[in-house]
Amino acid sequence: MRKYIAEFIGTMILVTFGTGSVVFGGTSFGAMPIALAFGFAVIVGAYAFGNISGAHFNPAISLGMAINKRITWRDFLGYIVAQILGAFVGSGIVVSLMSSLSATKSQMVMTGLGATNFQSPITVLGATWIEFILTFIFVLAIMAITAPKNELGQQFAPIAIGLTLTGLIVLGVGLTGAGLNPARSLAPAVILAFMGSTGALTNMAAYIIGPLAGGALAAVAAKYLLKTED
Amino acid sequence: MRKYIAEFIGTMILVTFGTGSVVFGGTSFGAMPIALAFGFAVIVGAYAFGNISGAHFNPAISLGMAINKRITWRDFLGYIVAQILGAFVGSGIVVSLMSSLSATKSQMVMTGLGATNFQSPITVLGATWIEFILTFIFVLAIMAITAPKNELGQQFAPIAIGLTLTGLIVLGVGLTGAGLNPARSLAPAVILAFMGSTGALTNMAAYIIGPLAGGALAAVAAKYLLKTED
Amino acid sequence: MRKYIAEFIGTMILVTFGTGSVVFGGTSFGAMPIALAFGFAVIVGAYAFGNISGAHFNPAISLGMAINKRITWRDFLGYIVAQILGAFVGSGIVVSLMSSLSATKSQMVMTGLGATNFQSPITVLGATWIEFILTFIFVLAIMAITAPKNELGQQFAPIAIGLTLTGLIVLGVGLTGAGLNPARSLAPAVILAFMGSTGALTNMAAYIIGPLAGGALAAVAAKYLLKTED
Amino acid sequence: MRKYIAEFIGTMILVTFGTGSVVFGGTSFGAMPIALAFGFAVIVGAYAFGNISGAHFNPAISLGMAINKRITWRDFLGYIVAQILGAFVGSGIVVSLMSSLSATKSQMVMTGLGATNFQSPITVLGATWIEFILTFIFVLAIMAITAPKNELGQQFAPIAIGLTLTGLIVLGVGLTGAGLNPARSLAPAVILAFMGSTGALTNMAAYIIGPLAGGALAAVAAKYLLKTED
Repeated sequence: MRKYIAEFIGTMILVTFGTGSVVFGGTSFGAMPIALAFGFAVIVGAYAFGNISGAHFNPAISLGMAINKRITWRDFLGYIVAQILGAFVGSGIVVSLMSSLSATKSQMVMTGLGATNFQSPITVLGATWIEFILTFIFVLAIMAITAPKNELGQQFAPIAIGLTLTGLIVLGVGLTGAGLNPARSLAPAVILAFMGSTGALTNMAAYIIGPLAGGALAAVAAKYLLKTED
Repeated sequence: MRKYIAEFIGTMILVTFGTGSVVFGGTSFGAMPIALAFGFAVIVGAYAFGNISGAHFNPAISLGMAINKRITWRDFLGYIVAQILGAFVGSGIVVSLMSSLSATKSQMVMTGLGATNFQSPITVLGATWIEFILTFIFVLAIMAITAPKNELGQQFAPIAIGLTLTGLIVLGVGLTGAGLNPARSLAPAVILAFMGSTGALTNMAAYIIGPLAGGALAAVAAKYLLKTED
Repeated sequence: MRKYIAEFIGTMILVTFGTGSVVFGGTSFGAMPIALAFGFAVIVGAYAFGNISGAHFNPAISLGMAINKRITWRDFLGYIVAQILGAFVGSGIVVSLMSSLSATKSQMVMTGLGATNFQSPITVLGATWIEFILTFIFVLAIMAITAPKNELGQQFAPIAIGLTLTGLIVLGVGLTGAGLNPARSLAPAVILAFMGSTGALTNMAAYIIGPLAGGALAAVAAKYLLKTED
Repeated sequence: MRKYIAEFIGTMILVTFGTGSVVFGGTSFGAMPIALAFGFAVIVGAYAFGNISGAHFNPAISLGMAINKRITWRDFLGYIVAQILGAFVGSGIVVSLMSSLSATKSQMVMTGLGATNFQSPITVLGATWIEFILTFIFVLAIMAITAPKNELGQQFAPIAIGLTLTGLIVLGVGLTGAGLNPARSLAPAVILAFMGSTGALTNMAAYIIGPLAGGALAAVAAKYLLKTED
């Protein structure tokens, strides 16, 4: 149970830091503080909970870990439930902070709640491809950094993985918002839909299929090309 | 005695770096350098003094540590006295640096001395809530990272905790100034009041009650949900 | 074979992160996010693959390592082939991401694909000198940080080397684009040439000769001045 | 001899990175990249040379170390000669890079070469005070982080000290340029004077007396207040 609580709190912190920096910094911050906020949240969460749950905070990572047998499929299910719940609470904290600013529902909708989305000329297929390729790189790096044989990476894994996410968000935030994490993308989109703005939710397929496919393929590539599981 | 001196100097560095970057960088810096200055001060202070005092530099953290019996209540008192004195000296250093610029008292007041404050539509209650929730996340992460059983976190705790603070300040600096630390908020507010500007001091309740309540609840949540004290 | 795959993937990540941040961030990002993207890619790749291949991702580094006998000349050849292939795939990923934006070939050419180039009044000789001196500092620092006797540097080498690259790119990005890596410079220039823009390719000499000469001299200086190989 | 070469190269890298980022980034970079360039140079140099010379790269640090008997007075002399020579070579590299841009002497003078200076209303006395207080904090943190008994700080000292410098430069760059290092301030000022601009050199007293006094007092404070030498 303790590991599910760790995944829950870690994902909550990730979504609070990440989507909160989008909402409260907005465009005036630029990409870097947002990318750093996500990356720092990974570093925090991984040093806090790495030895409890492995610190995934992301269904795409958990899928890769399950495929390579680093967690059981039963834990995979528990992890993603915890991650999705954590993402909703994290997104709720952002809404709660906005309420303290007396923001109206339409003002909240205007901020986008840090949800991920894309605009023409990017199609759903293009967005799925972008999410796929960025998550593939993300999970491939994670599998290598956390490979059981990799002694160099063990203590530094949280820093290395956090900065990977930062780099990928710098790259992709202007394209698809760089979700790379179905839980992180789902929560604000659902809350937005309840507030009457369904745009982010209708495009959700790209943010679920792309990252999960990328994470799965990365696990296979890591196992057979990099021999990470030997 | 040596641990109180460590808390004194560490809090002095935190307040000098943090409020100084607000005063001398002002809005031209944006949120990121200010947030990094606070975070880097934690990293510095924690590697310098972590093995002496535990490197709290913040009454809200010390309260959480005392509740979970990691320090005695007697040390709790000594720590917060040292922290408050350190914050005043740190704020005094910023004033002293401004004097070297021949800044008049009214010019100093205009910079705000890096004091934390909030504006309408945020109410005292709203600000207290924001300070509560952000400090709750902060201290929860700290309790987990520094849990006696958490071998991964031990050497990296200063970095992880410093970056947590940076992330939370990116999130909250535009709302309440992201105090998260009664000592850090109190010192510049009192000095401002002596200079004739009582605004920050009259709102001080939010910056004392919010962080202390957040730190206390985080200690309880860490103990019972995350079993950090086992 | 596994070490060549490591060099391939590491260089792919370096070029994807680095040139991608140039292409998708453009001038609106400024130098810092680009420099950080390159540096973070080194950190990621080195913690992922450092214990497999040594994590060079750069022919200039491999040349220095071969000169100081840390790798064989046979591995040197395998490494640079892997690095060049990795750079092309990395650059191809950036092109692929742009395709998802429905960018036309001429729009892609306009972004420059993150290729390195220089403008008048910098001459080829001047650019070669700049690339030489910056790569000399880069590889000299690497040889010292990774010296067999240097116990302090071993675990932290990826962070230290990544931040060295970031610092050097802050310094040189406005001069020559700060290639410092023949593979990283070659791939986007060749792809640009296939798209009809041969400018970056005609200036390629500076980005091959400068870094290789800098890396070679740094290896010799490290060996005889700093006794790194003793 | 090897330790003097280490101090020479480390200071050269510090001055190249730091003053180079001022010259080539100028005001368009803002304070943060400059502060990070200095801090990253410390991290690089300290992981490269920490186990050879202790990685001071700064006469004010060497003075503090000599006062607390961590180096001999004979080494103190050797260190500061090496540091000053390294600073001149570093500043020369920046000039050399500018030459590749075909910059005329007057254009070079206009960039200021990254020299430290201050303007009215700051007086020499005020600047000396600022340099004193900032260097005091810097060296006090260093003495505590590198204290023989401080096991937590040993491996992480380069990161913690580099980020301290970054924080202090964010704080002081708008005041005195945040020299905090007589060697770093002297070299570009002398080269500027040879080019006909004597402004920075005439104000040099503040950048020599302030940091040396700050470093000396910090050593004493560390020894007697923090018991760092026990």
